[in-house]
Amino acid sequence: MLNLFQHINQFISFSEEEFAQIRPYFEVIKLNKKETIARQNAAAKANYFVLEGCLHMYFINTKGVNQTVQFALENWWLNDALAFYKQASSEFYIQAIESSSIALISYAQQEEVLSKFPQLERYFRIMYQIAYGSALKRVQIEMQSSKEYKYFHFIEKFPAFANRVPQYLIASFLGLTPEYVSEIRSKKRT
Amino acid sequence: MLNLFQHINQFISFSEEEFAQIRPYFEVIKLNKKETIARQNAAAKANYFVLEGCLHMYFINTKGVNQTVQFALENWWLNDALAFYKQASSEFYIQAIESSSIALISYAQQEEVLSKFPQLERYFRIMYQIAYGSALKRVQIEMQSSKEYKYFHFIEKFPAFANRVPQYLIASFLGLTPEYVSEIRSKKRT
Repeated sequence: MLNLFQHINQFISFSEEEFAQIRPYFEVIKLNKKETIARQNAAAKANYFVLEGCLHMYFINTKGVNQTVQFALENWWLNDALAFYKQASSEFYIQAIESSSIALISYAQQEEVLSKFPQLERYFRIMYQIAYGSALKRVQIEMQSSKEYKYFHFIEKFPAFANRVPQYLIASFLGLTPEYVSEIRSKKRT
Repeated sequence: MLNLFQHINQFISFSEEEFAQIRPYFEVIKLNKKETIARQNAAAKANYFVLEGCLHMYFINTKGVNQTVQFALENWWLNDALAFYKQASSEFYIQAIESSSIALISYAQQEEVLSKFPQLERYFRIMYQIAYGSALKRVQIEMQSSKEYKYFHFIEKFPAFANRVPQYLIASFLGLTPEYVSEIRSKKRT
């Protein structure tokens, strides 16, 4: 849980003593590669912080194909933010891309932590502000870029993903076919 | 400013006395239709709350065409969330679609308000959580839907926009051409 403690302290000042008090609200879980922790149409029960590993959030589209909407590496929070807020059914699955270790906190526990330690509202406010701002940038790139630019921009901007996430998931996230990604990669190599 | 006071109180408990203290940090501005309040490549100086009217946020793409990334009606906050957080240049313009009245607060003033009234962090956390969650849903709809579904889903889900926002801006927001939107609208009518 050291990762989470350090991450919080990148944004607000939160002592070891305070962290020791919120520690019991979290559950630390190991996930195997391809293990699923949250499901589409099931209650959005928890918020997930990646201590180690990599997750993705996806839905199954009307053609039965998995579509990745968000990745999360170490120090990223992940869940269906709207469903979690409304305590409604999630629109998405969350699955481990590699063996991962995550800290999860339920809705009720998170509310309790926030009421006991309201300074954490600032931490989560910043997390969601960054996530929302990044989503706007993604819409911008999506709207104005060629498929080739989208791919190489992603690879250049997020090299950590390029090394760890399978090509077909990057393709899915970018709304490209895996075949197209193979094609532009081999074109670039030659 | 009653709108803002009431809006805050939908999410947290904030007294009239407290609101009177934060009131001077805001500037209330009237915008004419098509008036621009923030510019692409200029510093993201402020955060904007719509008291009355309707704004949109857009960028000019590489072909010189305006692309709307976000609308904001009454009680919506709007700015380039990532640039505002980093105090960097905005990627977007913000313009009034109709005559509007907005409350704006600068970065420094917002930080001061948040440090004096940290309970407002919760309010902004919820605002960004909803905005981020909505952005994820938008990505989902974008990925799985036909152009026709995207348009009619938007109109049905957000009737307030359909009545007030010109068709060509809704088209831009959905990544459709105005011609296509005219076509499916007239097809539906017949």
